[in-house]
Amino acid sequence: MNGDRDRRNAGFQALLGALEARALVLLSAAGDDPERSFFVHPAKLGEALIVVPAGSGRSPRLGYLTPMERDEAAATGLELLNPDDLDVARWSRDSPQPGAFHANVLAQALQRCGVAPGRIALAGRLPFGLAHEVLGRLAKEGWSFVSASDGLLAIRKHKNAAELAEIRRVAGVTCQALRWVAASLAGSTVRNGELWLEGDALSVARLKAGIAGIFAAAGLEQPRGNIVAPGGEGGVPHSSGTPDRIVQAGETLVVDLFPRGGLFADCTRTFCVGEPPQRVAAAFAAVREALQLAHAAARPGARGWDLQVAVCEAFTARGYPTPLSEPGTLQGYVHGLGHGVGFELHESPSFKRHAEEDGRLEIGDVLTLEPGLYDPEPATGFGIRLEDLVHLDEQPENLTPLPYDLDPRAWV
Amino acid sequence: MNGDRDRRNAGFQALLGALEARALVLLSAAGDDPERSFFVHPAKLGEALIVVPAGSGRSPRLGYLTPMERDEAAATGLELLNPDDLDVARWSRDSPQPGAFHANVLAQALQRCGVAPGRIALAGRLPFGLAHEVLGRLAKEGWSFVSASDGLLAIRKHKNAAELAEIRRVAGVTCQALRWVAASLAGSTVRNGELWLEGDALSVARLKAGIAGIFAAAGLEQPRGNIVAPGGEGGVPHSSGTPDRIVQAGETLVVDLFPRGGLFADCTRTFCVGEPPQRVAAAFAAVREALQLAHAAARPGARGWDLQVAVCEAFTARGYPTPLSEPGTLQGYVHGLGHGVGFELHESPSFKRHAEEDGRLEIGDVLTLEPGLYDPEPATGFGIRLEDLVHLDEQPENLTPLPYDLDPRAWV
Repeated sequence: MNGDRDRRNAGFQALLGALEARALVLLSAAGDDPERSFFVHPAKLGEALIVVPAGSGRSPRLGYLTPMERDEAAATGLELLNPDDLDVARWSRDSPQPGAFHANVLAQALQRCGVAPGRIALAGRLPFGLAHEVLGRLAKEGWSFVSASDGLLAIRKHKNAAELAEIRRVAGVTCQALRWVAASLAGSTVRNGELWLEGDALSVARLKAGIAGIFAAAGLEQPRGNIVAPGGEGGVPHSSGTPDRIVQAGETLVVDLFPRGGLFADCTRTFCVGEPPQRVAAAFAAVREALQLAHAAARPGARGWDLQVAVCEAFTARGYPTPLSEPGTLQGYVHGLGHGVGFELHESPSFKRHAEEDGRLEIGDVLTLEPGLYDPEPATGFGIRLEDLVHLDEQPENLTPLPYDLDPRAWV
Repeated sequence: MNGDRDRRNAGFQALLGALEARALVLLSAAGDDPERSFFVHPAKLGEALIVVPAGSGRSPRLGYLTPMERDEAAATGLELLNPDDLDVARWSRDSPQPGAFHANVLAQALQRCGVAPGRIALAGRLPFGLAHEVLGRLAKEGWSFVSASDGLLAIRKHKNAAELAEIRRVAGVTCQALRWVAASLAGSTVRNGELWLEGDALSVARLKAGIAGIFAAAGLEQPRGNIVAPGGEGGVPHSSGTPDRIVQAGETLVVDLFPRGGLFADCTRTFCVGEPPQRVAAAFAAVREALQLAHAAARPGARGWDLQVAVCEAFTARGYPTPLSEPGTLQGYVHGLGHGVGFELHESPSFKRHAEEDGRLEIGDVLTLEPGLYDPEPATGFGIRLEDLVHLDEQPENLTPLPYDLDPRAWV
């Protein structure tokens, strides 16, 4: 773990050198901030700030704003700036307006860390208007700014042992939930084309409740929701699925789960109870083949965009439109092949055409591979997507080693 | 509902007038953004922007960045700017760097809405560094900025019918979870001072798993966690509770739940199985009295800070330290009396001393009242907090009408 920490600290210093910045400064409103989570995981804090002063041997310091959070702050293991160090009581009294308050706290934190006014690299998430006010006030005191976010994303790409362990745990629970969906579908009977289980019609809402219960029992949440999308609903890749819709025999059901513990996991399978229409079976075979191709190509040193091109070419050879052959298409293959996963659901590496260094797959990355084929026609459409979560190492590890079968009875 | 919408639109226009701004502009990264939720609830979107141009009869327009989100965007009922309107494909190609991309998309959205360069009011949540880049680029094109967040908080204070209905639903499930905790404690037996239920010791983790299951079944999440804090752990108001700790007879257990559906709810009860020590019983009586006092004083027109002062005086009269009598105290009453609740867990009205207009309680507010007394000593300490969620109307409504009893057997 010390190796991980030293590597990270060296990364921060290299970033500050490249940005010619005197410190990295992270400021966050209360709530969800993936950039802060990266520094404090697994502790949880309300409003807080981080300062990483430039200088060899300097490491992150955490400033917290209320003594009620002293235990959480201590749990991070970071060097602390407590509310007295930051003069929180004074600024609350003398400059309670949020822009002034945060600018004063931040300037105090920088002074405490021995950082004189000059260029600082910004991270964290703030209300847009508050950011404007804080920046305006600090600029008057001689500070100037550059964004640290791209550089931090590059450092976040390489997961440390604790992060990887947490992603593996979350991926394991995700697999458990998908197996439960498969078992529920496999155990259903068909009445007038609808699936019934234990005396009730099997609705999207019922599947979502079961999934949520499995996640809750493991301490996971779904801040971005999930996708349980039957038939033509699954033909629109981000449609989450209408709750009162009853799952039908012979239609596709896209189940894409992306819960978060300390970090996210992400996995998709597609089901069909009963005989799939011929065009669904053909599309499924093409997606399955594309995923195999993607797994084989996802190696350290490859570029995300090259994988996307390879998958597009495979789909084109099978006669399906792709974003390369028909830009903007809503039929066929309509999205990117994957994305990095970590404290955010979508982070580096990138599979986009214009990605620069973050388009390169490297050892330590955790990323999705998720080819799909879609027909968004409400009555007759379908969605098919297969998504694995992969940890790139000398030998890549599939963190979601589930069956791929359309037929849920093949899962049990 | 039209009345609610007209009232909101009038509020946006009044805010733009007061800020002398040509438009309100909300820009959000993907993920959790309460300011955006306020505009799009109950729809969920990834990256998106909102523009409210100044001008009578103008209303919010939603810009979305990928056609995959067209259904979610349409579900908001807002006038839309689609990815073609925003030239997303062009900016992705010509200016993929995030600061340039978002600045170009935003400028395009403003042009589409007929807003010429000038002052705009900012809302939404962005990475701090990205905000800096977007603001710098727009400033060069003649835009200047002011924060809309305080003004939006004032508008958000008055809940509309749909928001109130959702808070009421979330509060109802919160009450259900607290009743389940009471029943679990009441059904326990005591072995060597520890609580046992159905053959297993009753740990904090077990209570947390049960609570999470109840929330998950109702589609609620706990993005800010929860507090299930026994004994001295509960004596530090924000300590969330050590999972493997077994609940003991004769010690306090603070259970503070603040889940989110579309909006948050927030409620706390404190339990003690078996005879409480005399000083716990006395402190409980003082907290119970303070809550009654707070309920009686929480009326439209009152100021949050005045309620805080009244509660401090009541505690002082009973001999407990407070932030007024001993600033910075960690013993006795150590925090504020309450806060508004809505799309954020903590929003307006404010109970802080230096609150200005947002310190005024008004009809339509939803707020907590949560007096407590604490002793953070690890071995012998205790925490006691009672928190209700109140909707202020001509006749205030307690949205968490639960028993207050320390003894869980009195609940069932």
